[in-house]
Amino acid sequence: MRLLLDPQLNPATETGWRRRWFDIIYRHDSPPARNFDLALIAAIVASVAVIMLDSVPEYHSKYGRELYVLEWVFTGLFTLEYIARMVVVRRPVRYGLSSWGIIDLLSILPTYVSVLVPGAQSLLAVRILRILRLFRILKLTQYVDEGGMLIGSLWRSRRKIFVFLSAVLTVAVIFGAIMYVVEGPEHGFNSIPTSMYWAIVTMATVGFGDIAPVTPLGRFIASVLILIGYSIIAVPTGIYTAELATSLREASHTSKRDSRGCPECGLEGHDPDARHCRQCGNKLPARMG
Amino acid sequence: MRLLLDPQLNPATETGWRRRWFDIIYRHDSPPARNFDLALIAAIVASVAVIMLDSVPEYHSKYGRELYVLEWVFTGLFTLEYIARMVVVRRPVRYGLSSWGIIDLLSILPTYVSVLVPGAQSLLAVRILRILRLFRILKLTQYVDEGGMLIGSLWRSRRKIFVFLSAVLTVAVIFGAIMYVVEGPEHGFNSIPTSMYWAIVTMATVGFGDIAPVTPLGRFIASVLILIGYSIIAVPTGIYTAELATSLREASHTSKRDSRGCPECGLEGHDPDARHCRQCGNKLPARMG
Amino acid sequence: MRLLLDPQLNPATETGWRRRWFDIIYRHDSPPARNFDLALIAAIVASVAVIMLDSVPEYHSKYGRELYVLEWVFTGLFTLEYIARMVVVRRPVRYGLSSWGIIDLLSILPTYVSVLVPGAQSLLAVRILRILRLFRILKLTQYVDEGGMLIGSLWRSRRKIFVFLSAVLTVAVIFGAIMYVVEGPEHGFNSIPTSMYWAIVTMATVGFGDIAPVTPLGRFIASVLILIGYSIIAVPTGIYTAELATSLREASHTSKRDSRGCPECGLEGHDPDARHCRQCGNKLPARMG
Amino acid sequence: MRLLLDPQLNPATETGWRRRWFDIIYRHDSPPARNFDLALIAAIVASVAVIMLDSVPEYHSKYGRELYVLEWVFTGLFTLEYIARMVVVRRPVRYGLSSWGIIDLLSILPTYVSVLVPGAQSLLAVRILRILRLFRILKLTQYVDEGGMLIGSLWRSRRKIFVFLSAVLTVAVIFGAIMYVVEGPEHGFNSIPTSMYWAIVTMATVGFGDIAPVTPLGRFIASVLILIGYSIIAVPTGIYTAELATSLREASHTSKRDSRGCPECGLEGHDPDARHCRQCGNKLPARMG
Repeated sequence: MRLLLDPQLNPATETGWRRRWFDIIYRHDSPPARNFDLALIAAIVASVAVIMLDSVPEYHSKYGRELYVLEWVFTGLFTLEYIARMVVVRRPVRYGLSSWGIIDLLSILPTYVSVLVPGAQSLLAVRILRILRLFRILKLTQYVDEGGMLIGSLWRSRRKIFVFLSAVLTVAVIFGAIMYVVEGPEHGFNSIPTSMYWAIVTMATVGFGDIAPVTPLGRFIASVLILIGYSIIAVPTGIYTAELATSLREASHTSKRDSRGCPECGLEGHDPDARHCRQCGNKLPARMG
Repeated sequence: MRLLLDPQLNPATETGWRRRWFDIIYRHDSPPARNFDLALIAAIVASVAVIMLDSVPEYHSKYGRELYVLEWVFTGLFTLEYIARMVVVRRPVRYGLSSWGIIDLLSILPTYVSVLVPGAQSLLAVRILRILRLFRILKLTQYVDEGGMLIGSLWRSRRKIFVFLSAVLTVAVIFGAIMYVVEGPEHGFNSIPTSMYWAIVTMATVGFGDIAPVTPLGRFIASVLILIGYSIIAVPTGIYTAELATSLREASHTSKRDSRGCPECGLEGHDPDARHCRQCGNKLPARMG
Repeated sequence: MRLLLDPQLNPATETGWRRRWFDIIYRHDSPPARNFDLALIAAIVASVAVIMLDSVPEYHSKYGRELYVLEWVFTGLFTLEYIARMVVVRRPVRYGLSSWGIIDLLSILPTYVSVLVPGAQSLLAVRILRILRLFRILKLTQYVDEGGMLIGSLWRSRRKIFVFLSAVLTVAVIFGAIMYVVEGPEHGFNSIPTSMYWAIVTMATVGFGDIAPVTPLGRFIASVLILIGYSIIAVPTGIYTAELATSLREASHTSKRDSRGCPECGLEGHDPDARHCRQCGNKLPARMG
Repeated sequence: MRLLLDPQLNPATETGWRRRWFDIIYRHDSPPARNFDLALIAAIVASVAVIMLDSVPEYHSKYGRELYVLEWVFTGLFTLEYIARMVVVRRPVRYGLSSWGIIDLLSILPTYVSVLVPGAQSLLAVRILRILRLFRILKLTQYVDEGGMLIGSLWRSRRKIFVFLSAVLTVAVIFGAIMYVVEGPEHGFNSIPTSMYWAIVTMATVGFGDIAPVTPLGRFIASVLILIGYSIIAVPTGIYTAELATSLREASHTSKRDSRGCPECGLEGHDPDARHCRQCGNKLPARMG
């Protein structure tokens, strides 16, 4: 949730160029700000595409040089943007330590580090976190309500989901140990952690098949585990659906409550069939429509 | 949705043979029109079966000649039908550019093109789009209400599903990059796009097993990804179920309560079979419709 | 549903031994009838176990002779039971042609046929249908309500599920043809029916992995198919859950309607807050509890 | 359910050191009791980690000796704890035979037995049951309500789930026999139990792929089985969701409506913050609790 909150950073100055640039970079309600957002989205998507293409061996050998140049162009642009964000806010440190500030930094740092430290190639994958920056812009669109309701329902279900995951892990530990004993290393179950990995893959109905039971007893136990998983796969769905249905119902209930305010005490949100204010007992006006 | 709407094309002439054929081809409420529909369904199903059988090597080598002839027979029939549809409507161009008109054309064009352009064999698979033409007829049956409710609920959930798919794709990008670094090309994760494909296959609990983690760390990260996928697989189900339940409830609520108000005390929401107000006992007005 | 209905066969005679045996075989409310049911359950379970064990190569080679004898014992018992069922009802032909009568016959016929026709070994698997006979007895227990509600909800959802399956099949046909063109026979997609099998296995998130896309384009299309399948996997769950929730709510609503009957016209099922009968307007008695 | 209930064991003496230790070991509401709980959680987690690490070949060969010593340390601690639990309660036998007492004993016994009986190495996996002991402490936290609601809904759905599992098993038996005949031992379906294992793996959408149909007919039957499984996978989710939604609705309904009746007109079901009847405007009595 914290991640989705824009730092409510004040502009550095009330007027002047810094104020103007603050409005362009941090706000989204003027035409230049909107253009800035669109350009930023395009740059993020393009730079993520560059990272992905560069990881494909064929493209790397053919266009490696061009992709390398493009990566530095994007890193340069994002560095300029990072500096601009620092300059125009009143408290640059607070921005730098906010979750968005850290993501912004992680988007550019690995490219510089990979030059300085030769063996840090694998660090380059960290740049992919750039994609998270899209959400900073996305959250300002019309989709924020939808996302908010989905995340809100997940958030309210968090304790139930935690209990559920504990149960799943416990079953994975126990069945992992059983399968380690029953099937043993010769069929791929070569340690309890490996067996737990298999149990999670099986219960969640993923079923890679890289490890699979071979003995009749192992297959029987696997079937039992699958049926257990099948019976409790319903649980997170049930939790979430019930929670979301409640959210939707309450949203619709709120809109069904009528809009009459009590002329005496001003209380709103009366039941549609109420004739008297439930707080002061005053007669309510008749409903319209 | 557009796809499911029949073009409300006017007949070419108010009377005469074109009008008669318009009624047979575009309408569905007379015995000849019904027979035309049934013949069309049979021809579509049979021609799709011919395409499918022709793709099986054994049948192609044994009955290739017969299937080739049959294909031309069906193409001829559909061409005649296409011309007839063109002729009997007042605005043939508007039909030709409608979504149904384009599907009709794509059903016959590849067969002709494959003769003219020698290397266009793979175009033949386009003919399989013929199967969509079934829905033109299917939508006139009793199943249109059911389909409409299912699609309507999907449509109302579209923004929530878009948000959800964005989240899934972001998780796939991040975990794809992680697994590319952790497992590397020697275990099949030979590029970030390939790793993303693996991440989507894993999160959606498909789990082909063509690529699977081998290192302990990779397996641990895969387990985490599976548990994340397991927790959010509930989301689309929850969205859709809650939306559909609302549809069903509203449908049943609307049809079960009528709109008569008591002329004496004004109470509304009586049962459809009520003759007297349940609050004051006054006689209710007769129901309409 | 038909399958679950016991043929309401009249006893052959009103009194005498046939009547007594009818009560034992077809009814379930006296101690001897209950013992007959229990013995029948034991025999069915044991004979199914014999069939299953006989199919395991090790057991077949070790205990093949004993299992063969046991099979004939059970076939003899079930033949006696079949004859008894024929004899004690008034219309044996009607029993023989009912769904239960056919299942009873299929449970014993293959054993005899396998002796007369030497090559009919594979027919023996038909005997496994014996297991369905368990439901005849199971349906008389306390679980009949639960089963009835589950099947009832499925039955009411049948048209929505039919629409859903049509959509799944259409998507399978189209993606099957696409993958046949994109991946081709060299990667296992050797015909459109095979590709359709792959598409169904993928959309339903089973993912055997016996066939899996290898080319980048094929993997991209597979990811799209998975995300489509992921979005619509919610549909049957949504349909069924909404339907079942309605059943449960109605069941609970029915039980919440109060039990006051109108003293004037006898109508029952009033709303809990009703003061007057909704049919005749007579004042209702005050509610208790 | 029984497993989650702490034996309500009385302390051995009303005062003295045994009473003091009873409060520390069996109760959780004083600072020393809380410290004891935390230490126990740490010891359980650490000892389970030791068992898991010891099963990994690399760690076993490198640190086998250290892990062996650690295991004996934990076994010693848990033995001391077990004796302490025995000593401080008034009825040690009742504790020893309770489900928690048996789990406590199974946590330490295998280590001793493995010394006395040389071939009992596989017994060591039983020690993993220690992880269940975490729930004894976990259940005293804030998560007990969440867990209780989840288990309660599962418990109320148990008969529907039993019916569902019976149907799944019956379908697995029938399709297992069919696939055994159709595919046969040469494609991995080498007995009916093996085919049933495949059918369960397939219906539950796990799909390991260790066994997969090869013949066209087998693939067609597999597709049918998948679509059946796809249609009924909704059933447990539907059951559980509907049940949980009912629980949540009742919980929220109960807590949101209060039981005050209007002294004037008797209307019930007022909002909790209502001070006046919404029908007649009369002052409501003050709420209790």
